Amino acid sequence: MKRVVFSNVQSDKLFEQVYDYLLERIRRGEWKAHEKLPSVRTLALELNVHRLTVFKAYQLLKQNQKVYVKDKSGYYVQPSNLLQMASQNDPIISAYVHESHLSEIHQVQATYQFSKALLDPNLLPNLYFSEYVKNVFDLYPKVLGTYSTTQGDRELREALCGYFSNRFHFHLSPDELLITSGSQEAIDLIARSLIKPRDVVLLERPTYSPAIDVFHREGATIIPIEIHPHGYDLEQVEMLMQQYKPRLFYLNPTFQNPTGYTVPVDQRKRLVELAEKYQCLLIEDDPYRDIYFGKEPPLPLFSYDTAGCVIYLRSFSKYIAPGLGIATVACRPSLMKYLIKAKSLSDSGAPLLNQKIFLHYFFSERLQQHLVKLRTALAVRKEIMEEELSVTGWKWSSPTGGFNLWVNLPESTPMDRLLAKCLEHSITFVPGSICDPRRELHTWIRVSYSYMNEQQLRDGLKQLVTLSRSLDLEEV
Amino acid sequence: MKRVVFSNVQSDKLFEQVYDYLLERIRRGEWKAHEKLPSVRTLALELNVHRLTVFKAYQLLKQNQKVYVKDKSGYYVQPSNLLQMASQNDPIISAYVHESHLSEIHQVQATYQFSKALLDPNLLPNLYFSEYVKNVFDLYPKVLGTYSTTQGDRELREALCGYFSNRFHFHLSPDELLITSGSQEAIDLIARSLIKPRDVVLLERPTYSPAIDVFHREGATIIPIEIHPHGYDLEQVEMLMQQYKPRLFYLNPTFQNPTGYTVPVDQRKRLVELAEKYQCLLIEDDPYRDIYFGKEPPLPLFSYDTAGCVIYLRSFSKYIAPGLGIATVACRPSLMKYLIKAKSLSDSGAPLLNQKIFLHYFFSERLQQHLVKLRTALAVRKEIMEEELSVTGWKWSSPTGGFNLWVNLPESTPMDRLLAKCLEHSITFVPGSICDPRRELHTWIRVSYSYMNEQQLRDGLKQLVTLSRSLDLEEV
Repeated sequence: MKRVVFSNVQSDKLFEQVYDYLLERIRRGEWKAHEKLPSVRTLALELNVHRLTVFKAYQLLKQNQKVYVKDKSGYYVQPSNLLQMASQNDPIISAYVHESHLSEIHQVQATYQFSKALLDPNLLPNLYFSEYVKNVFDLYPKVLGTYSTTQGDRELREALCGYFSNRFHFHLSPDELLITSGSQEAIDLIARSLIKPRDVVLLERPTYSPAIDVFHREGATIIPIEIHPHGYDLEQVEMLMQQYKPRLFYLNPTFQNPTGYTVPVDQRKRLVELAEKYQCLLIEDDPYRDIYFGKEPPLPLFSYDTAGCVIYLRSFSKYIAPGLGIATVACRPSLMKYLIKAKSLSDSGAPLLNQKIFLHYFFSERLQQHLVKLRTALAVRKEIMEEELSVTGWKWSSPTGGFNLWVNLPESTPMDRLLAKCLEHSITFVPGSICDPRRELHTWIRVSYSYMNEQQLRDGLKQLVTLSRSLDLEEV
Repeated sequence: MKRVVFSNVQSDKLFEQVYDYLLERIRRGEWKAHEKLPSVRTLALELNVHRLTVFKAYQLLKQNQKVYVKDKSGYYVQPSNLLQMASQNDPIISAYVHESHLSEIHQVQATYQFSKALLDPNLLPNLYFSEYVKNVFDLYPKVLGTYSTTQGDRELREALCGYFSNRFHFHLSPDELLITSGSQEAIDLIARSLIKPRDVVLLERPTYSPAIDVFHREGATIIPIEIHPHGYDLEQVEMLMQQYKPRLFYLNPTFQNPTGYTVPVDQRKRLVELAEKYQCLLIEDDPYRDIYFGKEPPLPLFSYDTAGCVIYLRSFSKYIAPGLGIATVACRPSLMKYLIKAKSLSDSGAPLLNQKIFLHYFFSERLQQHLVKLRTALAVRKEIMEEELSVTGWKWSSPTGGFNLWVNLPESTPMDRLLAKCLEHSITFVPGSICDPRRELHTWIRVSYSYMNEQQLRDGLKQLVTLSRSLDLEEV
């Protein structure tokens, strides 16, 4: 067998080797069509690798239609023409891809998706969306025949300027807004435009995992800033800014992902002063702003910025309509022009249809009514999660908004085994190490209460707690 | 004045300097609000720079709302709070952006857009689109509340597999298709996943300009392959593959952009053999396939590929619905997994709504009827363009499909001056040098007949011809 060469994909090697090994045995006919393959546990022992490694190899075999799963009882050899295709030699390829660690977990199809910080589609006013769409076609009959500009529909950008001005005292011109397909794209464009290898980037610890991946990909030197329930140690931040001259600090100060922590007003003002003093851009990601359970959160850092040091990312997918894929970036024209150029090389702007639907829905009264209901529904789900976890002795700081609980498990918890066991039982969560630029925080997990209904939350959490207890017993 | 630092943006320097210089004079009050600024010609003489440089600086001043244009009579100083904002010091920023040269021309608002290889929105069946959208909401009431997978909607990928199998004898599984927001995004993902600095990339000469920009950005060593009305010199291609071991050859063999040339069947087969022999991936971009004026073009290279050497990019924006932003990439799973990973770092997949609308429209009978009309309409527009240009003595090879005419002007034509003059008269075209990896081909232009109606085509081309003649006279 001619082996595919995987250079620069170090972390994948073991799992790929197991994959290749299994595929080779299937090809040789050691296991025939419809034959049951060894269990994850057995193979892990046989090959002396971690069970999660075997699990991932099986998942890829399944995805590539080499094996199938039957009644959760195990993996079986898939009889298929595809097998013959795969047995031809692959061209020698090597890829230079930095992998999204979070996306690996998200690829797992599970019954209890505590890993997904996404909104349950049932919580959206789906029935009414088609009305807005109809309006859009009445108003703009050629909407599907028309390209947006790269920067985004001007009417939408003007409306958003008005919204930002009313709500947060941002005074923007439409030229200072870019419409993107999500804050993920915005981070990607910023990293590609503004970071070169060895530039210093500050990231919260823990932080939004794909941000780590994106800045790593650009070769940035990453320095973590600890985030606590009441913000950062600003003396340390100043010292780091002074010493390392970071190019930017990517932060999510409101119902932070994954912790749910919110940075207080005085720290916000001080951070903007520090950013100006040390010429460090602040990339403020703000996807959860409207998901608060008590009072409204403090104003964005962007509100305090007079020197153009803050780039403000606002995703609306989380609670408006994930299916539209609309987010916006606000920054000064001197920076904006680079983001537009970067975007022009990857697409010609968000689809106009989606921008127009968003425009008509976002500024409607119905959205405001919906948001009130949504906050209540999510607060209830959060309480259910906290109630179910209250029996464990695990620790967390109760968030006042957002989608996530950031939970500290006992030191003794074998986290890798817990994750593998949960995956076997169709339960996912995000291990803390994925959110940590240092890849530590092994005793923490992120569990989201946004995606499942109340019953699913209860059932899934009960199982998760039971599995963790069974591991504790094994350890003893 | 604190100057913005532009590192790594060499080609911009002059234009930026002119911009800064003008802005500084406005800020100092040398020109007051509503005062008329010097003409492009005058300033170009004064500063001893090209008129296009001054023009671009003025365009950016306009875009940044420092100046405004009145009745085409010139540029005037904009009185505005924005000016005060801009007069604060910008943070010191340096950006690492490789600029899309084509997008610069596209940013110019012009009456006669010969630079846009886009479809005239009036040629689309806009009236019927809303029906398909209504169907989509009836069938998938939660479509706006649902994320697509990163790879794209499975139902759409399955339908496209059937289509490719029927039309082109591609035998694909849905796992071998990725839905992107356009072929531009696909090229971007391929470059980011598969190219590292100093990898050798073959590009057609001339080629699709943003492809040059994207592979440059990744630091590739680019080797041009001349494309002629009947294809390539395959002996030269083989020699280059043997000698330089290129990682990939990006090509657009059907109604090529910008030339309109089509590579014949025997060359297609031979290219696939060469690619396999020398382990060089072929990136086949195929956006114009259904826009043929005579008989259908030859099958894609992908049809002849058994070894997985071809990655097939198929954009549908050009003639289905630009506002949907749907394209697809077909390749083997071993490559696909890297593209998916790269995509997962930039967004979470094309919006589901757009994929579902596309699915229902693309496979409808109405689309087939529409395509017949569309081909006729575009053939007529092409003939009008050829008729208007027939008085010039310029040379071109009449294309049998696509959106563009690739025209050779006399050696004596001062191309930079022609472009500047056209821009002043609200006419755009694409100078050949932008499409040339060597940045030569100074006597060629690409003019698109797809975006304007018949009358606009005639009026614009008459003006273009007149302007070029007036320059010829000046030269004499």
